Amino acid sequence: MTTHRHRDEDTALDGLYAELSDSDLQPLWRLHGLLTPEPVVAARPYRWEGRTLRRLAERSGKLVGIDRGGDRRVLACANPGLAGAPYATSTLWAAVQYLGPGELAPAHRHTPAALRFVLSGAGVWTLVDGDPLHMARGDLVLTPSRTFHEHHNPGDEPMTWMDVLDLPIVAALDAVFYEDGCSEDVDARTDPASVSERLYGAGAGLLPVDLPDDLDGSAPARRPYSSLTAYRWEHTDLALRSQLEVTGRPQATLRFTDPRSGADVLPTMRCEMTRVRAASRTSPTRQTGSRVATVLNGSGSVTIAEEVFALEPGDIFVVPSWSRSSLAADSELDVFTTSDAPVLEALGLFRRSA
Amino acid sequence: MTTHRHRDEDTALDGLYAELSDSDLQPLWRLHGLLTPEPVVAARPYRWEGRTLRRLAERSGKLVGIDRGGDRRVLACANPGLAGAPYATSTLWAAVQYLGPGELAPAHRHTPAALRFVLSGAGVWTLVDGDPLHMARGDLVLTPSRTFHEHHNPGDEPMTWMDVLDLPIVAALDAVFYEDGCSEDVDARTDPASVSERLYGAGAGLLPVDLPDDLDGSAPARRPYSSLTAYRWEHTDLALRSQLEVTGRPQATLRFTDPRSGADVLPTMRCEMTRVRAASRTSPTRQTGSRVATVLNGSGSVTIAEEVFALEPGDIFVVPSWSRSSLAADSELDVFTTSDAPVLEALGLFRRSA
Amino acid sequence: MTTHRHRDEDTALDGLYAELSDSDLQPLWRLHGLLTPEPVVAARPYRWEGRTLRRLAERSGKLVGIDRGGDRRVLACANPGLAGAPYATSTLWAAVQYLGPGELAPAHRHTPAALRFVLSGAGVWTLVDGDPLHMARGDLVLTPSRTFHEHHNPGDEPMTWMDVLDLPIVAALDAVFYEDGCSEDVDARTDPASVSERLYGAGAGLLPVDLPDDLDGSAPARRPYSSLTAYRWEHTDLALRSQLEVTGRPQATLRFTDPRSGADVLPTMRCEMTRVRAASRTSPTRQTGSRVATVLNGSGSVTIAEEVFALEPGDIFVVPSWSRSSLAADSELDVFTTSDAPVLEALGLFRRSA
Amino acid sequence: MTTHRHRDEDTALDGLYAELSDSDLQPLWRLHGLLTPEPVVAARPYRWEGRTLRRLAERSGKLVGIDRGGDRRVLACANPGLAGAPYATSTLWAAVQYLGPGELAPAHRHTPAALRFVLSGAGVWTLVDGDPLHMARGDLVLTPSRTFHEHHNPGDEPMTWMDVLDLPIVAALDAVFYEDGCSEDVDARTDPASVSERLYGAGAGLLPVDLPDDLDGSAPARRPYSSLTAYRWEHTDLALRSQLEVTGRPQATLRFTDPRSGADVLPTMRCEMTRVRAASRTSPTRQTGSRVATVLNGSGSVTIAEEVFALEPGDIFVVPSWSRSSLAADSELDVFTTSDAPVLEALGLFRRSA
Repeated sequence: MTTHRHRDEDTALDGLYAELSDSDLQPLWRLHGLLTPEPVVAARPYRWEGRTLRRLAERSGKLVGIDRGGDRRVLACANPGLAGAPYATSTLWAAVQYLGPGELAPAHRHTPAALRFVLSGAGVWTLVDGDPLHMARGDLVLTPSRTFHEHHNPGDEPMTWMDVLDLPIVAALDAVFYEDGCSEDVDARTDPASVSERLYGAGAGLLPVDLPDDLDGSAPARRPYSSLTAYRWEHTDLALRSQLEVTGRPQATLRFTDPRSGADVLPTMRCEMTRVRAASRTSPTRQTGSRVATVLNGSGSVTIAEEVFALEPGDIFVVPSWSRSSLAADSELDVFTTSDAPVLEALGLFRRSA
Repeated sequence: MTTHRHRDEDTALDGLYAELSDSDLQPLWRLHGLLTPEPVVAARPYRWEGRTLRRLAERSGKLVGIDRGGDRRVLACANPGLAGAPYATSTLWAAVQYLGPGELAPAHRHTPAALRFVLSGAGVWTLVDGDPLHMARGDLVLTPSRTFHEHHNPGDEPMTWMDVLDLPIVAALDAVFYEDGCSEDVDARTDPASVSERLYGAGAGLLPVDLPDDLDGSAPARRPYSSLTAYRWEHTDLALRSQLEVTGRPQATLRFTDPRSGADVLPTMRCEMTRVRAASRTSPTRQTGSRVATVLNGSGSVTIAEEVFALEPGDIFVVPSWSRSSLAADSELDVFTTSDAPVLEALGLFRRSA
Repeated sequence: MTTHRHRDEDTALDGLYAELSDSDLQPLWRLHGLLTPEPVVAARPYRWEGRTLRRLAERSGKLVGIDRGGDRRVLACANPGLAGAPYATSTLWAAVQYLGPGELAPAHRHTPAALRFVLSGAGVWTLVDGDPLHMARGDLVLTPSRTFHEHHNPGDEPMTWMDVLDLPIVAALDAVFYEDGCSEDVDARTDPASVSERLYGAGAGLLPVDLPDDLDGSAPARRPYSSLTAYRWEHTDLALRSQLEVTGRPQATLRFTDPRSGADVLPTMRCEMTRVRAASRTSPTRQTGSRVATVLNGSGSVTIAEEVFALEPGDIFVVPSWSRSSLAADSELDVFTTSDAPVLEALGLFRRSA
Repeated sequence: MTTHRHRDEDTALDGLYAELSDSDLQPLWRLHGLLTPEPVVAARPYRWEGRTLRRLAERSGKLVGIDRGGDRRVLACANPGLAGAPYATSTLWAAVQYLGPGELAPAHRHTPAALRFVLSGAGVWTLVDGDPLHMARGDLVLTPSRTFHEHHNPGDEPMTWMDVLDLPIVAALDAVFYEDGCSEDVDARTDPASVSERLYGAGAGLLPVDLPDDLDGSAPARRPYSSLTAYRWEHTDLALRSQLEVTGRPQATLRFTDPRSGADVLPTMRCEMTRVRAASRTSPTRQTGSRVATVLNGSGSVTIAEEVFALEPGDIFVVPSWSRSSLAADSELDVFTTSDAPVLEALGLFRRSA
């Protein structure tokens, strides 16, 4: 649909263009690059090194109080292709968050949904609508759209984790709402498991029936996100090991889903964990929509389009839409990935190829 | 819609009735009891005592070879209201099955779906489409419609369990198909967990992605039954305990579901486990469709319509359609229930009232 | 799973059998014919001739008052294979209903769902929850589960139509509820179209939005049956003609569906209309579940299993489960079919083969 | 989450910020306006006058050849709030398209979905994957994602219509694909109705069964858009009139849906038509997500946030996310609206209030 304007000096045409402009209209034939054979993607394949993220998070912890930092002490991954926007890709926000000993990131809620993936340490409690979720290495914790959430660090050690949000999507849809909340006391000694995990997390396929109204999210329609808000590394690790055993393949992938429906944990973000056996590599694939990933265990590399990035624990990397990518493991590699695939699928735009 | 035939001797009318009869037609006004204000249910509230079931199962084991008994050594609960039909209710088959040491109940498959609930013992392996599922006390094991299944007892002890099938429904729909299969060797030492459990059972909400074709039941549409075919007592027990803790109520109920969808484990049968605290009772409820239940732990009683039946472990009891029922626990009571509720729900006929 | 009892005179065995019987238990190995390689179907392929149905309906109209006949003057097709039960097949009730000039079949409702297909004439108004639906030749009118319905004949001519109900299914599930209602006046002159048709019937794909609560069936879940309760022959005829034009095939089939969802009009019954071109035949197929059909236009024959039945307008015929059948048209043939396929599909038991 | 940077001159802090910047990280506490209490929307309430659109479209037709204009002679509505982007709102493209007598807008396809709503005239044929759809006043014609489409004007009169596309959404998701196609001859005399309309458009609730593979879109999953690609004014008008009659309200609204599923015609765009009675007004409502609307018949005004715009036929106006709006009719007013509501709903972000 590209076109080239002929170099005529037609006065009439100039007059038309002036009048169009005055009327807030733009002629399609003078717009270029709207419809391209394949996606033209601004975000670049990129990796933030875990050691840099850890170092700068710690320095921020020393220099910037949680008071100074507003509600959260967060460093956002800003993709160098996105012209200064604080986004990891065109659709996903990714960041590291640092919470010092005794600190509290106070309660608020917003329509953008968030997830927390813990890269190291333990001891922070995230309250989701008042339900206390302990956070430890390898755990995935959800703070879905419009749930009040706050983070407490009652321990002696600082803690750092990765946040992923669908903020760019919610912002593009002009649907951002935000509200402050009232933080609660949390007693880490008396609340060893969340209500969510006690109701939905005891075993695969076991769902509570006839819950009291205040506990019942019942139909997925009522709460369009997972009834289970914490996924523990112990189970994830076992499931990966078992899947590798059964299939005998070089890699295994798990999807985190709502136990009530098998749907993605959030309507906007898909969470998956991939384990690649030592000295193995995955086949290159590409898909529409973007991905943010982080390394939990192991070392190796990721190839995205033509670029190769070495990978170590704590690294965060992004795969832009329609970029071919594959993983190579030196030692056994565990990679946690968040994508916008549920959005693309819901809109009939998901496309994947080997 | 009831009517009373007038005692006329109208010859013309007699002639009409004769001709209708010859033409395979029946006048509605001479049919009574077709449409009743509430369900008129033939099946009676009933309980089979566990000690009788165990004793007769064992005696059958001694007197009747598995060869004599055809494929299975099974005693079917025959509801005394059903005129000699070998059915526990109008829609559900319930039975105890006995397998002696070293015995094999050979492979076959059929459209009626079955489930096995283990009341005591351990050691039998059921192969479902070749996947070996160990059976132990409190476990629920599924043999869905059209899956080949066989039972092996490689141990030194006999074992007894409860079978529930949707046979009366499938028969009423003229949809029974049956086929013999080839039994396989099963080595209980080398196969500690089924493929189904290793892929789907490691934790709530964790689903495998991109499985090889031969392992992938993918969309629930492809296999209209649970991807997980064994539910272990260890998880069920923990989930019940946790739910009681959270709600503080006298009873807790779990539903066994397909981890891929949260749907009932089978399209025809709902499986649930209820725990009633010691010295507590549940509120009476009634619902359309029938239920078969068995006691795993504890003692107490069940009230069905006007009848009260004492309950001990191993007892099987049935609640006919629209009969009010409630449980009372002396000691903490664990009751496993199978109902035809998914059928009633799918057809818009499910109705429940307190 | 068949077995033969050995002719031993084992006293112990006789004692066991006696005790099982006393305990309401039946040994599976003495039960035969429960699980058969293919469905063993009691209902027989059968056809009731239209001229007989019309003649006997008219005679009933003369001899039996609507008062004598209870609420309805109905002749039920009794399949000769079903041992005297007033059912057309094991799952479907089929009948002709006759309403004389000025007669009223009063309001009632029941859980079994009904549909009316009009074979000739016009002028009767059926009120469904108060909504007046005119009935004329070729129209399909629904009276779904639990909707109050009544039939008025304000005209000078008697009228006859076919009823199909899911009564055998609802009865087998012990879910029959029945209730009398209050009949209403209907003024055929002032109410030319039903509310249902005015809201949902103006055109394909056009759905009303934000209806007042009393008119809004909104989500299919709220009313598990079609929002449109009358399907007019004019549209059906056009759709069949257009489909034949587009495909160039010997036959065209339409399914009647809920415009809100595309689902079957009733959760228990599928309604379809097939047109076969003159001098053409359809390929033989068979499927699980049973079908009741009637001829609206044309003549020809139906082959069911090994039997051939000539077909004329007004004939009703039944295809039992898993019987192969095909249609042959002498003149262009229009056949309306009701099946229990939604039940079989919902339960994972639907199977079809060419 | 707003924060104010203290005016310290802390060198360490400056060093941190420099290092963060070098590392492509941005501190959240220096980012403002990311999370706002309510949506902060760049797009402005706006109206393009129909007479201006018609005049400039005609002038473009005279001055710019379809060859010069590339594939399409289209004037895009550029919202003055969107900094020069050729979009009507942040999520929707709206434009007028002009096709002169004898002109052909050649075949192409792209992932952004389009719809055409005809404001006046008749005679253009749009081919959608080869299926010829005639276009006339009041008709809605769909060219869903990835369908080849082309426009032919075989007549003597130019024609103008409105295009709406989901281009901004597809672009934001980096999922734009484009491909040229081969245009076909279309003979307007021999093809009076499209295949789509003949198969799906004959009447509400009538769906074809067992279509040949090349015609069968079967499950909505296979083609995630409507099986019916043209909605005729004749039906829309009748449905609006009937709904007003039934409800007696000041306004009626219809949704255009896929007859196979009742779902929105496109996964990204909802199409509705509202009729407001003369001298009536609708209640103000607001919803997340944006809307583009055009006036087919009547005159009146629309109030959006605090602004009032007079409305005449052919006007296009936009309602940004979360702006309150209401319609007032002088004469009976017909307004066609396209929104991104299916996107917001699928992502759990739809919110509406009175």
